[in-house]
Amino acid sequence: MIKIYDDGVTFPKGFTASGVHAGIRKNKLKRDLALIAAEKSVPAAAVYTLNTVKGAPLIVTKRHLENGYARAIICNSGNANTCNADGEEIAEKTSELLGRCLGADAGDVIVASTGVIGQRLSMEPFERGIPELVNTLSAEGGKDAAEAIMTTDTRLKQAAAECLIGGRPVRVGGIAKGSGMINPNMATMLVFVTTDAAISPETLQKAVSLDVRDSFNMITVDGDTSTNDMFAVMASGQAGNDEIKAMTPEFEKFSKLLSTVTRTLCKKIAADGEGATKLLECRISGAATKELARKAAKAVVGSALVKAAMFGSDANWGRVLCALGYSDTALDAGKADVAFVSAAGKIDVCASGSGIDFSEETAKSVLSENEIVIDVDLHCGIFGAVAWGCDLTYDYVKINGDYRT
Amino acid sequence: MIKIYDDGVTFPKGFTASGVHAGIRKNKLKRDLALIAAEKSVPAAAVYTLNTVKGAPLIVTKRHLENGYARAIICNSGNANTCNADGEEIAEKTSELLGRCLGADAGDVIVASTGVIGQRLSMEPFERGIPELVNTLSAEGGKDAAEAIMTTDTRLKQAAAECLIGGRPVRVGGIAKGSGMINPNMATMLVFVTTDAAISPETLQKAVSLDVRDSFNMITVDGDTSTNDMFAVMASGQAGNDEIKAMTPEFEKFSKLLSTVTRTLCKKIAADGEGATKLLECRISGAATKELARKAAKAVVGSALVKAAMFGSDANWGRVLCALGYSDTALDAGKADVAFVSAAGKIDVCASGSGIDFSEETAKSVLSENEIVIDVDLHCGIFGAVAWGCDLTYDYVKINGDYRT
Repeated sequence: MIKIYDDGVTFPKGFTASGVHAGIRKNKLKRDLALIAAEKSVPAAAVYTLNTVKGAPLIVTKRHLENGYARAIICNSGNANTCNADGEEIAEKTSELLGRCLGADAGDVIVASTGVIGQRLSMEPFERGIPELVNTLSAEGGKDAAEAIMTTDTRLKQAAAECLIGGRPVRVGGIAKGSGMINPNMATMLVFVTTDAAISPETLQKAVSLDVRDSFNMITVDGDTSTNDMFAVMASGQAGNDEIKAMTPEFEKFSKLLSTVTRTLCKKIAADGEGATKLLECRISGAATKELARKAAKAVVGSALVKAAMFGSDANWGRVLCALGYSDTALDAGKADVAFVSAAGKIDVCASGSGIDFSEETAKSVLSENEIVIDVDLHCGIFGAVAWGCDLTYDYVKINGDYRT
Repeated sequence: MIKIYDDGVTFPKGFTASGVHAGIRKNKLKRDLALIAAEKSVPAAAVYTLNTVKGAPLIVTKRHLENGYARAIICNSGNANTCNADGEEIAEKTSELLGRCLGADAGDVIVASTGVIGQRLSMEPFERGIPELVNTLSAEGGKDAAEAIMTTDTRLKQAAAECLIGGRPVRVGGIAKGSGMINPNMATMLVFVTTDAAISPETLQKAVSLDVRDSFNMITVDGDTSTNDMFAVMASGQAGNDEIKAMTPEFEKFSKLLSTVTRTLCKKIAADGEGATKLLECRISGAATKELARKAAKAVVGSALVKAAMFGSDANWGRVLCALGYSDTALDAGKADVAFVSAAGKIDVCASGSGIDFSEETAKSVLSENEIVIDVDLHCGIFGAVAWGCDLTYDYVKINGDYRT
């Protein structure tokens, strides 16, 4: 049984964290540099954006993770360190500085950045911030780290869970930033997860790569796949379980534990999409293949027209059918049933691909809630998928009409 | 030399048109039923949406165009006649009724609908409207027809052009509706084009299929590929030119004439995207292949973040790089130069994939115009493409948050 906790990356044994204001952002009240540290070099795994324009920190991190081990994750907000001529140099210098302060190898540092693309990043704030970051590392520092990676996020995002594996309690905890430029492809904007499970780098990588297909790859805020997406995990091994081997019952248990944390973070990212007032969840069932189910779910929550209709609490299910229809040329939406579900109830709006009579009043009340499920049964097979998104609002336009200046 | 005219589907010889209020829409001042008629059955060609959910009128039109000939195009706005159990029956009955009134074969009718998906459409307005439509057909009726197909369009869209082919003046004219659910794939929302060129159905189809790749398939308003996209052309043959054969110099001339009209309609559709205040044009050059150029151009004008930045006159070129980077996994944006161009001037913002210093003040003035060109040279090859879109504004959200009710 998996128990869920309101905690983050310092929940698993063997990790400390901190977050400080280093001066990358102008607002002095906002922490802008985060650190998550293990006690020694531990197994680590990551997945990265498939955007061919890659942030310099991702290129450096990929190099550092080639051996499958890491000691710490450092992440700044306020500047993406992307499309800068000296970006890699800055990311390497940051790793070296952190390595010196921690007494670790620079090659064991996972480095990440988020913020505006194409603005030069100076070493100054790192020189000021890193010693303070290291000095304030603590087992209660998870929240400070979660706060320091926020950009236009309005809410701090963390999740934690625990279950028994091989008779030992194993924990997973994570933090995330989301908000805009969210349409991850292999990873999300930034997600850092820790676990105290004993697991090899290869098995951890397998678990992570499997997980993203149904977690972060299934959320979208605006269809823009970021240059800086990264989902990184470190495993301290301090839970005391026997090492988890791939494709065993223990691996299944660990994967479920991991996905409990990642799916919770997914919902938090989608619900806090830029300008969002509502979390949208599209549940597809009855698809002919898993891939068609995933594409269909993501097309529905990604449709600007569906998103705007949900903002207006308008049961415009024709837009759901339209999105299903363009999700893939092999998808048959002709037999689709569609219902809207929320805390206020359920309303069926479409059966076998055609509209059915329904009460506009009831629909309005169902759609006025802040968590809406769009339930679709394609009646074409046995596969399903879930995707998360948010409504499209005036505030999305406001936030993004003048983000940089 | 191609001459451009402010005219539409009745500009070429051999066509009449009309538009009336038939009662499909509640607003009695808004025409909602359009007719374009040839004097007899003439060569016709069309391309349709690739959305697998297809409007009933498209299915019926496809059937009617199997023989390559048509006599008339009828189109209603206010109801898409899509996802209705009796949709095909309604579209066939409409064709029969029009056929009777025109003295034509029902199988020679191109039928189209645009509006809300999934609302039953009754025959009543057609029974009332079709006789009036036929009685008011005139060589000056192009504008009435253009008005009758508008939905959330704020401006009537028509274009016309003429050039000599084989020593004879050949004309092409067209009307379009656009606005929302615009991300055509093989055709746009609705575009009807006429020509008086002498051309066979097969050659006409070839010209149309080639044309859409660089015209309507290169516009996007919101990324939502409609269920009812259709681009249909009729050729009266009354220009008196020798029949145009495929892949001859005359075919090239005709294709250029056609594209003069279709590209003008593209810009009009994009500029009048729902809520739009600005027309965006992305010009890609230096791509390694034509396909990469097309994908890159369309990704840039389709990015919600680029669109919102343009609304705010914010020179956030990092979002342009980001969109290039996710447009295709084979695209290299590392050497890209980016500039913004408008009537107020040109400003270079990125060279070889990295930011360069520029005046924010000048950028603001360039981006404050209502037609913005985003000029990208990838420095990877010789191929180019152009795509059109519009900014993302509060009004897009407003229009689509409560479209149906």
